Amino acid sequence: MQIILLSGGSGTRLWPLSNDARSKQFLRLLPVEGSDGLESMVQRVIRQIQEADLKASVTVATSVTQQDFILAQLGTEVSIVTEPSRRDTFPAICLASEYLSKEKGYGENEIVVVMPCDPYTESGYFRTIAEMDKTVGKNVAELVLMGIRPTYPSSKYGYIIPGQPLGENTFAVHCFTEKPDAVTAEKFIEDGAFWNGGVFAFRLGYLTTIAERYVNYPTFEEIREHYGDFPKISFDYEVAEKAKSVAVVPFYGEWKDLGTWNTLTDELARCSYGNVTTDGTGENTHVINELDLPVMCIGTKNLVVAASPDGILVTEKSRSEEIKSFANRLKRRPMYEERRWGTYRVIDFVEYPDGFSTLTKRLILNPGASISYQEHACRDEVWTFIDGEGEIVLDGERKRVNRGMTVYIPKGMRHALRAVTPLSFIEIQTGSNLVETDITRYPFEWI
Amino acid sequence: MQIILLSGGSGTRLWPLSNDARSKQFLRLLPVEGSDGLESMVQRVIRQIQEADLKASVTVATSVTQQDFILAQLGTEVSIVTEPSRRDTFPAICLASEYLSKEKGYGENEIVVVMPCDPYTESGYFRTIAEMDKTVGKNVAELVLMGIRPTYPSSKYGYIIPGQPLGENTFAVHCFTEKPDAVTAEKFIEDGAFWNGGVFAFRLGYLTTIAERYVNYPTFEEIREHYGDFPKISFDYEVAEKAKSVAVVPFYGEWKDLGTWNTLTDELARCSYGNVTTDGTGENTHVINELDLPVMCIGTKNLVVAASPDGILVTEKSRSEEIKSFANRLKRRPMYEERRWGTYRVIDFVEYPDGFSTLTKRLILNPGASISYQEHACRDEVWTFIDGEGEIVLDGERKRVNRGMTVYIPKGMRHALRAVTPLSFIEIQTGSNLVETDITRYPFEWI
Repeated sequence: MQIILLSGGSGTRLWPLSNDARSKQFLRLLPVEGSDGLESMVQRVIRQIQEADLKASVTVATSVTQQDFILAQLGTEVSIVTEPSRRDTFPAICLASEYLSKEKGYGENEIVVVMPCDPYTESGYFRTIAEMDKTVGKNVAELVLMGIRPTYPSSKYGYIIPGQPLGENTFAVHCFTEKPDAVTAEKFIEDGAFWNGGVFAFRLGYLTTIAERYVNYPTFEEIREHYGDFPKISFDYEVAEKAKSVAVVPFYGEWKDLGTWNTLTDELARCSYGNVTTDGTGENTHVINELDLPVMCIGTKNLVVAASPDGILVTEKSRSEEIKSFANRLKRRPMYEERRWGTYRVIDFVEYPDGFSTLTKRLILNPGASISYQEHACRDEVWTFIDGEGEIVLDGERKRVNRGMTVYIPKGMRHALRAVTPLSFIEIQTGSNLVETDITRYPFEWI
Repeated sequence: MQIILLSGGSGTRLWPLSNDARSKQFLRLLPVEGSDGLESMVQRVIRQIQEADLKASVTVATSVTQQDFILAQLGTEVSIVTEPSRRDTFPAICLASEYLSKEKGYGENEIVVVMPCDPYTESGYFRTIAEMDKTVGKNVAELVLMGIRPTYPSSKYGYIIPGQPLGENTFAVHCFTEKPDAVTAEKFIEDGAFWNGGVFAFRLGYLTTIAERYVNYPTFEEIREHYGDFPKISFDYEVAEKAKSVAVVPFYGEWKDLGTWNTLTDELARCSYGNVTTDGTGENTHVINELDLPVMCIGTKNLVVAASPDGILVTEKSRSEEIKSFANRLKRRPMYEERRWGTYRVIDFVEYPDGFSTLTKRLILNPGASISYQEHACRDEVWTFIDGEGEIVLDGERKRVNRGMTVYIPKGMRHALRAVTPLSFIEIQTGSNLVETDITRYPFEWI
């Protein structure tokens, strides 16, 4: 079985911890059963897949901006397919399917299960995925969906109306309805409808046939180059609603969307994370502090307080769904990111009226990791090394770096860096156009 | 008339805006009547003294740590006397009195009024000071106090129990009682007692005679050198309670101690300061943000949210008196200071287990201001200039600095800096002992 894990989302509903690069599935806040550690939603779902012994290979379909988070959190055990631009679920699933077919060489009968990376659920969910795999294997239908048992008449989800039984715990799908009003939803639930949890199973050839109606090239690379030719449409509309035979396998266990502070904090193991002081009189308050600054909460009730390099949030819990629209107005560059080579946080940013600006970051490079040989056209950089050991290359000249050393890298100077031990440094960028895309990379061999 | 303004306090009750260097009287949050500007408590009291036309010279008695704040906020219109160490109000008033006598040459009949720098009050308070001046001038008593009309039976203040009238709006003082319980306070108030607001008037010779019982030298400089010989005792205990004749002049107007977030926010002109976003549904919430990070408040009620480089506070308003004990546990170096040459804020601070640490500051030097010619024994510094124009001296070599320039200053290198226009730069300190006292100053003439 192949699992395509969809990892998308722009992530302002959990602002300031989530940002354009760090969607909610990357927040390391969830307790790991039987351990003191914390894991993110995407780490949790991969762990659950492994524990369910599904014998599946996982391919993550994601955007370029999330690629480094996936590598930092999941390592190289999963394959990654990046969309060149953000479109919708149908193009994303087509691209990943073409990757499995043309790049990995799986045959048209290979069974594929597509699932989101962020449901908060339990082991029964993964046993249901195994049942869906069997249902496709028995050719009961060309498309098999998971039906989630609704817990309230939500207007947020799509509903699956089941028809006649097709076997043990399997039904034909009578029809779909997207986001009904609460009264209609109530009626659907009485009639036995399910939520559509976005889990789909099919044979690989079924989907590549559909995909190739839009984009048909002999290699995966060519298909990826023409990604913009896929229509911007969801998988539900383009595939599920048009399928000739659709079956649903119900799942009756716990399933939650931890998409708002209110729902997420219900699942946290602790009330505070990071440098937090409280007076002990607070009630139903969660404080998550990713800054070095201390946070103090006195006598607070029903609040979420969250602080990160992107900003500081204080919200009444029941109103936390509303932060999205306000957070969108605050859009700034992401101030914290996990990269394949390590992490960085922005500690200072000043923009002057004439366009000159300065950005100060503290970076940590993982042992053995390196930053590619590169130059910038519009900015100077000053690196001051504060911990660890490493090697730097400046216009071809290579030398050791360690604590207290400072290196000035003017525009046009080629530079690369490699960590021997965890290497911390402060980078000050100055210039008129401080963007990540001001970068020209060159080959370099560390030997 | 001479006014001695007492400026002390360590300032954790308004944490995180107040810190060891920035006491509450330096927070620029109070509205200026008839203007959009904001002023601090100490700026407000100086403005009120000027507006009351008291024809008084002001001498601020303060600690060395507050001297730069006084200079930054009041300029050179006031004299400043700094205590070499913190003792109590009696030694502080003695030192300022000896300064007026021995350094400024005022005679023993000069009338002196001592007052705190942080009452929030109105013009009648300053008219009462003029009355106290007249009362001393008429030799009604050797010590004259202001009596504040109590508004509730507080256990926080000292009470003055008046005796027989000594003239228009003047009474003999029958006795003093420090911080009675609420029941006793209630009884005092019924009997016409006043709060002791810490305003005292006397002739200069009266106090220098008392002072010289403890420390008697011909020059002010020698007296200051022997400051430690003064007993650590309050003016109330050492002078007021022992005086042969004491009078009180009542003041019946508005008088408040804005010492907690709850009382301070009552007087603010706006509900938010700095980069703050709210959803408009909050009630009775004040947000003061001195960070560059955005603060977002959604649906908050009865809260104070305050953010500064020292930390982030979220407190239920009525409990804000309790922050002091928690803030004392969080003691860190001050992360924001106003200095005579400008301001700085700490943007990053990392301490490693082996004692090595790194401190990153953003500084702004005022035009014409300079940093003295100095060297450090235990730290290297890297300065990256990000705005403005100035001049630097490095081991005697002088050159211009401007945007984008970086200067490396190793241990033992002498350096000075002067701003031509407002000069912003980022300083990274690295070393094993990053303290302000690691500094050796040398003479340098900018010509």
